[in-house]
Amino acid sequence: MKRRRPSASVAKANGRSAAAPARAEKLDKLTLGQLDSHLGYFLRRLQIWVFQDFIQTLGTMKLRPAQYSVLLVIEANPGRSQAAIGQTLGIERARLTRLLHELERRKWISRRASGSDARSYCLHLTADGEKALVRIKSLTVQHEARLADHVGAQRHMQLMDLLRDFG
Amino acid sequence: MKRRRPSASVAKANGRSAAAPARAEKLDKLTLGQLDSHLGYFLRRLQIWVFQDFIQTLGTMKLRPAQYSVLLVIEANPGRSQAAIGQTLGIERARLTRLLHELERRKWISRRASGSDARSYCLHLTADGEKALVRIKSLTVQHEARLADHVGAQRHMQLMDLLRDFG
Repeated sequence: MKRRRPSASVAKANGRSAAAPARAEKLDKLTLGQLDSHLGYFLRRLQIWVFQDFIQTLGTMKLRPAQYSVLLVIEANPGRSQAAIGQTLGIERARLTRLLHELERRKWISRRASGSDARSYCLHLTADGEKALVRIKSLTVQHEARLADHVGAQRHMQLMDLLRDFG
Repeated sequence: MKRRRPSASVAKANGRSAAAPARAEKLDKLTLGQLDSHLGYFLRRLQIWVFQDFIQTLGTMKLRPAQYSVLLVIEANPGRSQAAIGQTLGIERARLTRLLHELERRKWISRRASGSDARSYCLHLTADGEKALVRIKSLTVQHEARLADHVGAQRHMQLMDLLRDFG
């Protein structure tokens, strides 16, 4: 398992050096106080690590995590509506509309009017979208491996077991 | 343990009703496809729940999670610098500066020039800040209890154990 801030750990282990007080003060990690009792804080720290690594790993594809989620759910459920996808992923309507427009602009998805409901559109991946998703997945596999390395393989599995009910 | 989307579970359990197809389609939860293998997705879903509940519970105080984190770290480490707090919480400098200005505007913190380094400021809670923090903590205790209820008390402890290394 790798720790997030090796420099902070080193500074802590060495204590503050009289030779470089300003730098040592900067690198020193403070105590968290009562923040240490809040699960949300620790969830957020790891979640930020995940987003940063995801965005960096997917750099060449310029893809954000929410866009990736939407592509995977459209892939797994071709022909379903925006409302069903928003409901599944917990993405609020206006935001999902913007996100889908962006995926459409890149020609990765298509919207076709639904036969049963004129107000509703069915979402599909295009051939270009399927091709892009192959490249994207080869990068997200790397991201997931790096996450497993960051937290440790066993902890990765335990967290998955504990968190899966909330997705 | 309470599930996040009782309505979606009910829709799934009942299947789609011929009487109200549009509504059932909306409430139906789709499969996640390969998203199901990404820990980051599940982390993010629970983290969003936490932020929403935090902001709602702290409604009367108009306080965001990051502001709360900063107040607790200043309380636990009076007189330390902005750089040390940013380093500890992983908050990028420009964002932390804005956040501290807002806390100063509310007269909850004070910055005093540091004796050892003229460019640096020492951060302290004011008497008003200490008073506000008492009220804030009585609300965050409620929030944490609701989170423990949402995930289950045992899972709350297990997650804390697994995630604490990354804060």
